[in-house]
Amino acid sequence: MTDDDQLLHPHEPAASYLARPDQVGRVCLLYSGGLDTSVMLKWIQDEYEAEVVALTINLGQPGEDYDVVREKALRLGAVDARVIDAREEFARDFIVPAIKANAIYGLNYPLFTALGRPLIAKIAVEIARETGCDTIAHGCTGKGNDQVRIDGTVATLAPELKIIAPVRDWKMGRDEEIAYAREHNIPVKGGTETAPYSIDDNLWGRSSEGRWIEELDHAPDDDVFQLVTRPEEAPDEAEVVTIGFEAGVPVSVNGQAMDIVSLIETVAELGMKHGVGIVDHIEDRIVGLKVRDIYEVPAAAILLPAHAELERLVGTIHQNRFKPGIDQQWAYLVYAGLWWEPLRSDLDAYIDEVNRFVTGTIGMKLYKGMARVVTRESPNAVYDAQLATFSESGGLFSQQASPGFIELWSLQSRLAWRLRNEDRG
Amino acid sequence: MTDDDQLLHPHEPAASYLARPDQVGRVCLLYSGGLDTSVMLKWIQDEYEAEVVALTINLGQPGEDYDVVREKALRLGAVDARVIDAREEFARDFIVPAIKANAIYGLNYPLFTALGRPLIAKIAVEIARETGCDTIAHGCTGKGNDQVRIDGTVATLAPELKIIAPVRDWKMGRDEEIAYAREHNIPVKGGTETAPYSIDDNLWGRSSEGRWIEELDHAPDDDVFQLVTRPEEAPDEAEVVTIGFEAGVPVSVNGQAMDIVSLIETVAELGMKHGVGIVDHIEDRIVGLKVRDIYEVPAAAILLPAHAELERLVGTIHQNRFKPGIDQQWAYLVYAGLWWEPLRSDLDAYIDEVNRFVTGTIGMKLYKGMARVVTRESPNAVYDAQLATFSESGGLFSQQASPGFIELWSLQSRLAWRLRNEDRG
Amino acid sequence: MTDDDQLLHPHEPAASYLARPDQVGRVCLLYSGGLDTSVMLKWIQDEYEAEVVALTINLGQPGEDYDVVREKALRLGAVDARVIDAREEFARDFIVPAIKANAIYGLNYPLFTALGRPLIAKIAVEIARETGCDTIAHGCTGKGNDQVRIDGTVATLAPELKIIAPVRDWKMGRDEEIAYAREHNIPVKGGTETAPYSIDDNLWGRSSEGRWIEELDHAPDDDVFQLVTRPEEAPDEAEVVTIGFEAGVPVSVNGQAMDIVSLIETVAELGMKHGVGIVDHIEDRIVGLKVRDIYEVPAAAILLPAHAELERLVGTIHQNRFKPGIDQQWAYLVYAGLWWEPLRSDLDAYIDEVNRFVTGTIGMKLYKGMARVVTRESPNAVYDAQLATFSESGGLFSQQASPGFIELWSLQSRLAWRLRNEDRG
Amino acid sequence: MTDDDQLLHPHEPAASYLARPDQVGRVCLLYSGGLDTSVMLKWIQDEYEAEVVALTINLGQPGEDYDVVREKALRLGAVDARVIDAREEFARDFIVPAIKANAIYGLNYPLFTALGRPLIAKIAVEIARETGCDTIAHGCTGKGNDQVRIDGTVATLAPELKIIAPVRDWKMGRDEEIAYAREHNIPVKGGTETAPYSIDDNLWGRSSEGRWIEELDHAPDDDVFQLVTRPEEAPDEAEVVTIGFEAGVPVSVNGQAMDIVSLIETVAELGMKHGVGIVDHIEDRIVGLKVRDIYEVPAAAILLPAHAELERLVGTIHQNRFKPGIDQQWAYLVYAGLWWEPLRSDLDAYIDEVNRFVTGTIGMKLYKGMARVVTRESPNAVYDAQLATFSESGGLFSQQASPGFIELWSLQSRLAWRLRNEDRG
Repeated sequence: MTDDDQLLHPHEPAASYLARPDQVGRVCLLYSGGLDTSVMLKWIQDEYEAEVVALTINLGQPGEDYDVVREKALRLGAVDARVIDAREEFARDFIVPAIKANAIYGLNYPLFTALGRPLIAKIAVEIARETGCDTIAHGCTGKGNDQVRIDGTVATLAPELKIIAPVRDWKMGRDEEIAYAREHNIPVKGGTETAPYSIDDNLWGRSSEGRWIEELDHAPDDDVFQLVTRPEEAPDEAEVVTIGFEAGVPVSVNGQAMDIVSLIETVAELGMKHGVGIVDHIEDRIVGLKVRDIYEVPAAAILLPAHAELERLVGTIHQNRFKPGIDQQWAYLVYAGLWWEPLRSDLDAYIDEVNRFVTGTIGMKLYKGMARVVTRESPNAVYDAQLATFSESGGLFSQQASPGFIELWSLQSRLAWRLRNEDRG
Repeated sequence: MTDDDQLLHPHEPAASYLARPDQVGRVCLLYSGGLDTSVMLKWIQDEYEAEVVALTINLGQPGEDYDVVREKALRLGAVDARVIDAREEFARDFIVPAIKANAIYGLNYPLFTALGRPLIAKIAVEIARETGCDTIAHGCTGKGNDQVRIDGTVATLAPELKIIAPVRDWKMGRDEEIAYAREHNIPVKGGTETAPYSIDDNLWGRSSEGRWIEELDHAPDDDVFQLVTRPEEAPDEAEVVTIGFEAGVPVSVNGQAMDIVSLIETVAELGMKHGVGIVDHIEDRIVGLKVRDIYEVPAAAILLPAHAELERLVGTIHQNRFKPGIDQQWAYLVYAGLWWEPLRSDLDAYIDEVNRFVTGTIGMKLYKGMARVVTRESPNAVYDAQLATFSESGGLFSQQASPGFIELWSLQSRLAWRLRNEDRG
Repeated sequence: MTDDDQLLHPHEPAASYLARPDQVGRVCLLYSGGLDTSVMLKWIQDEYEAEVVALTINLGQPGEDYDVVREKALRLGAVDARVIDAREEFARDFIVPAIKANAIYGLNYPLFTALGRPLIAKIAVEIARETGCDTIAHGCTGKGNDQVRIDGTVATLAPELKIIAPVRDWKMGRDEEIAYAREHNIPVKGGTETAPYSIDDNLWGRSSEGRWIEELDHAPDDDVFQLVTRPEEAPDEAEVVTIGFEAGVPVSVNGQAMDIVSLIETVAELGMKHGVGIVDHIEDRIVGLKVRDIYEVPAAAILLPAHAELERLVGTIHQNRFKPGIDQQWAYLVYAGLWWEPLRSDLDAYIDEVNRFVTGTIGMKLYKGMARVVTRESPNAVYDAQLATFSESGGLFSQQASPGFIELWSLQSRLAWRLRNEDRG
Repeated sequence: MTDDDQLLHPHEPAASYLARPDQVGRVCLLYSGGLDTSVMLKWIQDEYEAEVVALTINLGQPGEDYDVVREKALRLGAVDARVIDAREEFARDFIVPAIKANAIYGLNYPLFTALGRPLIAKIAVEIARETGCDTIAHGCTGKGNDQVRIDGTVATLAPELKIIAPVRDWKMGRDEEIAYAREHNIPVKGGTETAPYSIDDNLWGRSSEGRWIEELDHAPDDDVFQLVTRPEEAPDEAEVVTIGFEAGVPVSVNGQAMDIVSLIETVAELGMKHGVGIVDHIEDRIVGLKVRDIYEVPAAAILLPAHAELERLVGTIHQNRFKPGIDQQWAYLVYAGLWWEPLRSDLDAYIDEVNRFVTGTIGMKLYKGMARVVTRESPNAVYDAQLATFSESGGLFSQQASPGFIELWSLQSRLAWRLRNEDRG
């Protein structure tokens, strides 16, 4: 073989949505203000000789000062810096469907990051189009799920936009990033000796990864909990909070109607106070192996079990046996970055039909790390006490029905047992 | 029509296993020593002119004095009174499979009564055959699940034996039972004014029904908790307990090997001390509508989440996504009284194969009503840290793999989205 | 015990919906004109001293003369005799949802009887109310599924109406029925020596039970096929029929638009001609054990596979993997007499969402008993050829993506295999 | 940025198992004797300056002359050329489990290629190790499923071996391959004007892709069928073949015991004669979008429905409702290249437990493209006729049981319907 080029593909990227350097003119960068994305803001300008529009999205991260973030972006050379408050859209279009779907991935993860990513990427597409960008940049690594959610959303909604993900490509570790930052006058927050936890948070929860968390036999150190009070330090008095639902949507707290963002914030406050919502958990990533996460999900740890209890109260045994399979599939799709997959719409149609009747009130007792249902009330409860109401007109069932039921219910099992266990000689 | 008899069935019973009065000669009565079964012991002798063999089975009910129960049976006229200690068989053949199956029915019920019934009925068949009985009697009502489990087991294992269930047939309420007891010199425990909770218990838990529990908006009164310390009164110091598993079976506590009965008792002690295992829960009965139960399941509330965590740690994402459906079906069958159904054997074959690798140690933190995994260790963990071990011989994955994965993972979803959302003109 | 009555329930019926003799004043009888229901018409008048309104429902049974049936009912003493043409409602509200659900129970049964029963019972409730009846009578035996579907529907929709099912109660066999008929001047069709097949039919198919069909090792005798041409006698020339679908509903045949009843009849004609739709099949009854049925389902055997193929063509792999579980549950509920169960509404919401995009045309080749998809066309096809359309604007995927996909797709499986199969010493 | 290399990853391959050119010393090539792999045999020697061991595996491809293939490999420069007869291992360890799992992917695909690939790759690993190769080469493209199955198997079983897949990398189309072949004295079979169908075949079936098959509205041309007689040309006389099964494994044909390879060949002969086993089908690839395939699967089209019928005959309704979900997951894993995934072992444990009782005989009628069950017999049948046997000792059920069953079976549905449909004012 003399002519390699006739036989081998040119080095085309492994994905159609990846930008080649010569395609990058103006970049919409998902910008948090932290070390990674600040280095990135500078590095993209240098590496690609491209303009950068910094985009910061408020999904309810507690304690963030968005003016400071915006200023920093401009100071580092962004040609534009936008801050979008997307809390209401996030709560309404992402958290509420998750509540209706009792959305838990694995044993315990209420999906908050997974719920935020498709919205973040959707807004990035909108802003990129608005500001004339050809490329979207994000700070995801090559090891996690978030790249799947963001790349997948952009490639779905805007095939004309390309993606760069510098952290996935470059070789810089934390030390190199700090060196790069110093060299380029990028302010570095906090000490530099110890790597901090890797944090993500929004209205629906907060996650921590890294450091000792990767050692599975290391019980949580106290300093990881920045949101939820440690149960040992929570009040000695229990508190009962009642959540009102209408058609599956939480609408009131202790009888007081609230918009959905305020409601989630209010419930989160109560949860934080009582140490509720700590999750220490191993998770199967879509990309890669397992990861251990420490989550703090004070609102989810109250609203999800309240919703689930109410839903079971108004559902029949047939509905209640079938819905967990629907819910698990919903959570899996969302976790796996397939928010825009039509199967999710199919599942939502099912879930919405179930939730039409999920109306009522659930009382949750909060105490030192625990949230437990203690009262429930619904006009749609499929419950014995309802029988009384109907019994005047004849009653729904006869006391004599059981033996006939048992006879037929066990019939095939009995015959099979005999065939398999008795001598048929 | 002049001759009704030619047209209508004679009044045959609604189930093949029900005894007609003329078929009842000697009855093996499942005898607890309480009011219902004591009245029954006498009533069967009178009503059927039959002999009664009283059978009491020890499944680990706390605080029971079986000598007293046995004496009482004989005093009330039983021709024989047997007490069988079945704790080991119960733990080994019923609780351990339930642990391997992460067996939870509905949102929270670890199935303890449901697990005990098929064993109780199986022993009743054995003793009935041994003592020459033709009939088995039990104290189940016509409204609950237990009749399904007991009738179904007897009809499966011993089609030659018939069943009577006096409480299902007679019209006596509690007051009439007490009057009947007084009339027949049957000692009645405790006051007679207030009906007590309806209790069932064994090694794996305790349930309470009745009284205010039927009011769904009535939060639990303190007097219902007789097993587990109220969380508010539990120790102020948290305690970590480690459970060692081999092939899915719990075998040690805090590093000390134990037989399975002692292990469950030891873990239950710890749970009770720390207020762990309170369940307040609505359940879909197989027979009838829903019921609210208050459960106290201190051992299950520690062992089940410990097992589930370890199982997920050693399972792949494919295994971990599929097993919940298997487990839910197992729990449903057992709840529904179909212990002897061959599908359970099929499910057990699957479950045992998974559990071959469920070996390791889980640390559970117990604190004021809460049990939470804090550490885990297994030689079979499918976990990132294992990658290091293998990386010397080349590593399991490339950092460059993600974009290609995302490209193909999202491909059909992306195409479908375009087809459905974009103008195709 | 001296006073039995204080202890035992009076002989109350085993089901709340069963009529006691003294409750029966005027009966709406589901009347087919055959031997069973004709005997019943007379017997109810005699046995209960009740008036009878005869109700005959046209669901598309081929070759029925409803005037004759009506006359016969009046001659046998019915105070009123109604014939209702419910073909359109049946096709629109029962068959079409079944097509969208690809509804098959077991390996092969397209549910035609199961689909008809809830509608028949619903109309019976309407006519019973209209004609002032207090009771509904049907001819189901105590061994089959139809009693579940009819009793269940009546008890759901009209708890104030009671039910009698004489065949379930009386002891008459076929010979006694014929004797009774002769004695009461009820005309008996055909010979009386051999019991005929037990037949049920409607627009969607025809079933035969009884006689040699109960012998599992008896291959079908030719005389059982009254609807479909025997494949051996079907035309030697194959024929291709194209079915057009809009949103999951069949709307045209060979390009010609038709209303749904005509369409089903037209497709059935084609199927019958070519010997298509013979099913010889063992089925798990809800009530009782298994039964063998011979079905003739010429329309279903063409429309169901056509719909299924089109649905898979427009669905993603995620949708296509999940829907069979939905469809199987739908078919099970309907088979099991739970048409009115809210879970069916939940499933329908899912199914309708999927079917929004099931638009296109399928060509089916019919030949001597076989119906096979040979062509398909849809604007919504998630198909490679579509890629071309998009590739000008960049293409949906890179040729280089596969290795990265495979790397991550197999990652956990590979690690688990090593952990389980290699010496870790 | 001045120093690109400090920031960017070197161009490492997108998968850990891909060989870099400098790692390739001796290559085990999966060699079929066709154009692709013959060009590859030469190209690898030139491109990598590597030695090639040619490996050809006999999985029962009809009409292959393996001596000729072997000679050709040696003539093209292979240092060694091996032919392995793996038919028995294939039938016993891959096809039999598929029969037990009723393995169908999508609507119709019996997985023959998918079953063969993991075995081919496993043998390649064995031969590569035996002959001192460091690399395995295969002819898969970058668009299909087979690369997933082969790459995945090699990476699982032999992480020390690397992979090259020249067709996935090079730019040659069919014309360039023919030019390359001519230039290097590689014999080219047949005409060169028209690309042939792309074929794969083994003992279990044959697939055709390409040409008009990609046009979904193009009904099959006759020349695609090289294995199965066209139904129109099949015998005018139907033929019944009986298949005997023991524990799920087919063991006899028409009463004559056979080893599994002979049995599959014998049944395939019968199927081919009668035009049975034509599949025209759209499939969701794991990698990429959908593809249309024309399959000819004469043995599978007889053995799979025979097994499924027998399995349902000996299973209870509970088993029969649950197994399809197990089977679908098995087929999906195998289709998706995850043969070595531990979930498959878990599923196999379940499937083997079910199949312990799948013993008996099924008669299949074959006629002009159709295979239909006509008789069945099993000592384990859970069937009514068995009831007779038992009824002497009391019978398994009472005729009076149904109303009680229906009462409780429909109870929650009825209450829910009332709550949802009636005015509760």
